[in-house]
Amino acid sequence: MEPSSGSRDARPAVPPVAAVLPAGGSGERLGGATPKQFCAVQGRPLVSYTVRAMERIGWISDIIVVVSPENIETMKSIIEKYGHKRVTVVKGGITRHRSIFNGLKVFAENEFSNHLLQKPEVVIIHDAVRPFVEEDILSKVVMAAKEHGAAGAIRPLVSTVIASGTDGCLDHSLERSRYRASEMPQAFLFDIIYEAYQQCTDYDLDYGTECLHLALKYCKTNAKLVEGTADLWKVTYKRDLYAAESIIKDNLSQQVCVITNMKEVVAQVGSLLCESLQSQIKVSTTLCIHLQNILSGQCYSFVCVNDTKCAIQETQQLLDVLEKSNISLLYPVVLILVHLDVSENISFSIGMEELARLKKFAREVKKKNILVYGLLIQYK
Amino acid sequence: MEPSSGSRDARPAVPPVAAVLPAGGSGERLGGATPKQFCAVQGRPLVSYTVRAMERIGWISDIIVVVSPENIETMKSIIEKYGHKRVTVVKGGITRHRSIFNGLKVFAENEFSNHLLQKPEVVIIHDAVRPFVEEDILSKVVMAAKEHGAAGAIRPLVSTVIASGTDGCLDHSLERSRYRASEMPQAFLFDIIYEAYQQCTDYDLDYGTECLHLALKYCKTNAKLVEGTADLWKVTYKRDLYAAESIIKDNLSQQVCVITNMKEVVAQVGSLLCESLQSQIKVSTTLCIHLQNILSGQCYSFVCVNDTKCAIQETQQLLDVLEKSNISLLYPVVLILVHLDVSENISFSIGMEELARLKKFAREVKKKNILVYGLLIQYK
Repeated sequence: MEPSSGSRDARPAVPPVAAVLPAGGSGERLGGATPKQFCAVQGRPLVSYTVRAMERIGWISDIIVVVSPENIETMKSIIEKYGHKRVTVVKGGITRHRSIFNGLKVFAENEFSNHLLQKPEVVIIHDAVRPFVEEDILSKVVMAAKEHGAAGAIRPLVSTVIASGTDGCLDHSLERSRYRASEMPQAFLFDIIYEAYQQCTDYDLDYGTECLHLALKYCKTNAKLVEGTADLWKVTYKRDLYAAESIIKDNLSQQVCVITNMKEVVAQVGSLLCESLQSQIKVSTTLCIHLQNILSGQCYSFVCVNDTKCAIQETQQLLDVLEKSNISLLYPVVLILVHLDVSENISFSIGMEELARLKKFAREVKKKNILVYGLLIQYK
Repeated sequence: MEPSSGSRDARPAVPPVAAVLPAGGSGERLGGATPKQFCAVQGRPLVSYTVRAMERIGWISDIIVVVSPENIETMKSIIEKYGHKRVTVVKGGITRHRSIFNGLKVFAENEFSNHLLQKPEVVIIHDAVRPFVEEDILSKVVMAAKEHGAAGAIRPLVSTVIASGTDGCLDHSLERSRYRASEMPQAFLFDIIYEAYQQCTDYDLDYGTECLHLALKYCKTNAKLVEGTADLWKVTYKRDLYAAESIIKDNLSQQVCVITNMKEVVAQVGSLLCESLQSQIKVSTTLCIHLQNILSGQCYSFVCVNDTKCAIQETQQLLDVLEKSNISLLYPVVLILVHLDVSENISFSIGMEELARLKKFAREVKKKNILVYGLLIQYK
């Protein structure tokens, strides 16, 4: 989906969109010293997953990450390490609302950057600690914001909500079905949310938490509420970090792609492999030359079958394609090379020199988060 | 803490208490075929952890688990397999409130059991899918219920709660600090909650979810609200199962107990082992004869150092103590036997016959969830 209004796509065109990710929280509910957005999940800071979830969406032009002053350098090094693009780091305020306001200012004032970023028509606000956001819900809140001025994802309440009296006893409970939990992402016409922040009181900035409320109070904009999926949950407690880790592991191991070439024996082994893997995991197959087509998906594990005669050449091509695709920026990519020795000799026909070159490839791409393993099989 | 009113303990005496665990949910939010209370976490159904959390508390006399008719046999086999005591299984109704009502009836009517269970002064209601409940919060809600007639655990809201208008747009948002999430456990004077259920309408039984609300509406009892800890969360989504699994694993691996005897060389090796483990894990030490004292704690991993001369005898004693303690009913117990060979001979001084006997011990206790591993070390 492109932000151009002249798109031939039947779907409605997405207006120019930017995203602001408040990432200034202290993580006190997590009970650790590291704020939760910087906690490592599978070796990578949580905020990096969330940035990546935004970054992969082509129609989001700028991603503003707002962090507390002491974490600016940390955030910049994360952006460099994981090769994030289109990201601007902004210094946060002492509360959530003040941080979001600072993030919005980069489109309207010179206070936080050398040059003004191009003001978007719609701005998404999303928490840095909700890494599993999908394009579908983002585009829904953006389209709803374009129509209604503001929109936000909601979820059913998990627990009944109650009000207590001054004596610490139950005053009343809310009927669960009439209320919803307000979640993220939210989206706003930029002019509406920016005006709301400009007009709101210090009390709002210091004690408020809900952007939809500001749009309603100061711009009389009743946000459209969009039912979100269970993925939208916020990493709040330590148990949520555990859950995030398991979900990411699960995603990684869900799918494998078997790569072959046109040679008969190679295709045959590839097809036997697919058959035996299919009962345990989602398997796709492709010819090496068509690999590019499947790299946009959710696959991070590859098995490449070839014969020893073309091992070097094919491996080099394959690694080039994987490297250029950047998929290893998000998760480690695992590539298992299966070299078939189909010669009649007893001794293996792959030479020491080829082996050394394959090992060298593996060492080089490991730095880029691509893990290569090799297997040499005598096949008759 | 004993339920007797003549306790010499300075703490207030706990009145006769029973617990009702509704476990009739269908688990539709989890997205799987198995209701979440029966999902395996580390190989054991979730509901078994929750039952165990109640069961270990001596002052809870009866535990009523309410399950849907098709799961009665499953629940009974879980009780048998994990050796749960003081548990009665009751057939649930089609809604949560109807199930809880059925659970309460075993203390007042002959409808669900051959004999009436003794009516408790206070009844705890707790979800089968909140396995990490601690004695502290249970005793707090029980004492508060005794004083106020009803009490329930609460937690701060994680998200802002909003009300939507008929147009699907935001009507208003609630000020987060004025509201709380109502969680479990809750506790009631039995007569109050039973009367509330007897009086309440079919509409309440079919569409309501909150017991505190019934006590207020039908018995004018304003429940005391007790701030709970983050542990009280409810397993609702698949990510919560992941989290539960990780928390249980974490609990299991956070402590090890090194067991020695009085012999100098054994004590020396034990103390070296403690030193080297201390940087990675919480370590306690005990003499074999004092093992009983530490078995009430959170320790499931044991290393026993002895010399080969008394290997059989000490191992047998140790396994007896571990078996009798029942700690392996909750989690697997791991016991690593380190036998020191301190003889001057080059050949090992433990005989084939002893080895065979140790292996036999290991096979027998494995059925009781105690995993034994052995190590033979020549030590000079």
